Amino acid sequence: MNSPASAQPIFVGIHLGGDVLRATIVNHEGAIVESREAPLDRENLVEQTAQIVSELRTLVPNVASVGVAIPGLVNRLTDRVVDSRVLPATVREDLHAELMRVTGLRFELENDANAAAYGEYQVGAGRGSRDMFYMSIGESIGGAIILDGKLWAGTAGLAGEVGHITLDREGDVCVCGNTGCLETVASAPNIVRRAKERLDRDSTSSLSRLAMNKEFTASDVAREARNDDDFALMMIERTGKYIGTGVASVINLLNIERIVLGGGVMDAGDLILKPIIKESKRRAFQPSFEATQILAATLGPNASAIGAALLARDAHLT
Amino acid sequence: MNSPASAQPIFVGIHLGGDVLRATIVNHEGAIVESREAPLDRENLVEQTAQIVSELRTLVPNVASVGVAIPGLVNRLTDRVVDSRVLPATVREDLHAELMRVTGLRFELENDANAAAYGEYQVGAGRGSRDMFYMSIGESIGGAIILDGKLWAGTAGLAGEVGHITLDREGDVCVCGNTGCLETVASAPNIVRRAKERLDRDSTSSLSRLAMNKEFTASDVAREARNDDDFALMMIERTGKYIGTGVASVINLLNIERIVLGGGVMDAGDLILKPIIKESKRRAFQPSFEATQILAATLGPNASAIGAALLARDAHLT
Repeated sequence: MNSPASAQPIFVGIHLGGDVLRATIVNHEGAIVESREAPLDRENLVEQTAQIVSELRTLVPNVASVGVAIPGLVNRLTDRVVDSRVLPATVREDLHAELMRVTGLRFELENDANAAAYGEYQVGAGRGSRDMFYMSIGESIGGAIILDGKLWAGTAGLAGEVGHITLDREGDVCVCGNTGCLETVASAPNIVRRAKERLDRDSTSSLSRLAMNKEFTASDVAREARNDDDFALMMIERTGKYIGTGVASVINLLNIERIVLGGGVMDAGDLILKPIIKESKRRAFQPSFEATQILAATLGPNASAIGAALLARDAHLT
Repeated sequence: MNSPASAQPIFVGIHLGGDVLRATIVNHEGAIVESREAPLDRENLVEQTAQIVSELRTLVPNVASVGVAIPGLVNRLTDRVVDSRVLPATVREDLHAELMRVTGLRFELENDANAAAYGEYQVGAGRGSRDMFYMSIGESIGGAIILDGKLWAGTAGLAGEVGHITLDREGDVCVCGNTGCLETVASAPNIVRRAKERLDRDSTSSLSRLAMNKEFTASDVAREARNDDDFALMMIERTGKYIGTGVASVINLLNIERIVLGGGVMDAGDLILKPIIKESKRRAFQPSFEATQILAATLGPNASAIGAALLARDAHLT
């Protein structure tokens, strides 16, 4: 412990996102004290992480421990990164041991959807609930389950893969090998794919002009929807229906107190939240739907970093 | 407590099924000592239950408490039957208080799918697992979740409704109001419906002769499949694929250690279990599928009664 007796311990959370490293300092109550971001240097992750931790420690010396949120599967018992689409195999092998060796600090590793869920649960939209399901809808669709204050990881640490429940037995082939997964219609790249397929048939949307000049993104679709473009509105609304179908299955299966929806696709705000709620109401058992609160996440892109810091705090306490 | 100090306490489990009352006595280890069944007298449930408990007590005097499995929603905190398709409203209102008043014994009430799950978990196919998902496929499709030895009922006691996850967004309308639920294709009545729809087009199956003379059941389809009737085999196999799709969604969402499949439809044995496993393997995340054991239930139609007795035992101990 390197915190002086006079000061409360402070916790650092780091998210090694797809392209960005986000670092956040939170105090003991979970409030953000400081944050940083930088382009992710995949080949030198340990050095980059150690460097940013070192910088932060010059600002707040009493860092007690560090949580790291990782886009991949983390075995919490062994602190090993079992699989990751982002981290090179050479780096992830000894990530935990190397980080501790280089910095002299205690580190906690966690999957980034789990970390975001924990952040939202503690200081975001999940606050005040006992049980919570978190769904992150962005480049891919992930999720996490929190029961009675603890992440429920399942038997192999893989629970929460809500992006890969089947919505349509005969649907499109998914990256996971299944057909008709929620992710095949509702992730950011699949919103773009669906929009492009339809634009081939309907060129009146302002997205057509975008499409002619450059690639457009799911954020562009959301922005044009906010600008009242009919086609973009329809795409966002239909995406909401797909997500709502998945939410209804989660409600019927888990009868969970609260469902928190985060990730970049949720930046569309009420334009997507309303059809999600409407469709899940239509499809779920009424008493179960009524017992569930469905809310948009509130921590934004810092959710995983904040959650990682809070996981470090709570591991530090035990 | 009316058990003499010299004898181990004994527990009675009663299942108020659709048409049948099943009563089972289990000893402290969960082994069946005695069982009874009788046509269910819906209008006189309290009297019938008290009568059968009284008969059983003449055989084994040291009955410590009684568990009752109910086809409906039970609030375990208040011991009230909140909803039931089987029990008349007049009976279910005060069921718990009345049973205790008439018999002088302690009673525990539980939903029958939950009770069956607990029975399988303790002394059936779930034995030895820590976390288990139970799926009952019969007249309807229900389920229950057991985490770390305890039934996980959700925020309003409604968790486990796996029959009402959406498999096909554009599918048939379900009794629950949703479209394309697992139950719309895989429950016993829906197996019969699907078979009849196809028989209108294909009259070579031995089921056609059955259909001409009388109504046939899902059990008839399973029996003809065992007799190598091609059409019946195809119906059972396709049903297995539907169930396997649901099982895959459960695996991806919960990454649960063990899945136990019970209910009348599973009487088709390996003819249905094999396609269920094959389809869930095809659709689920490979590491998550590999971490999950999928087994047929072993307690048969007594599962709910046995589970109710064990729930009474475990409530008695606490």
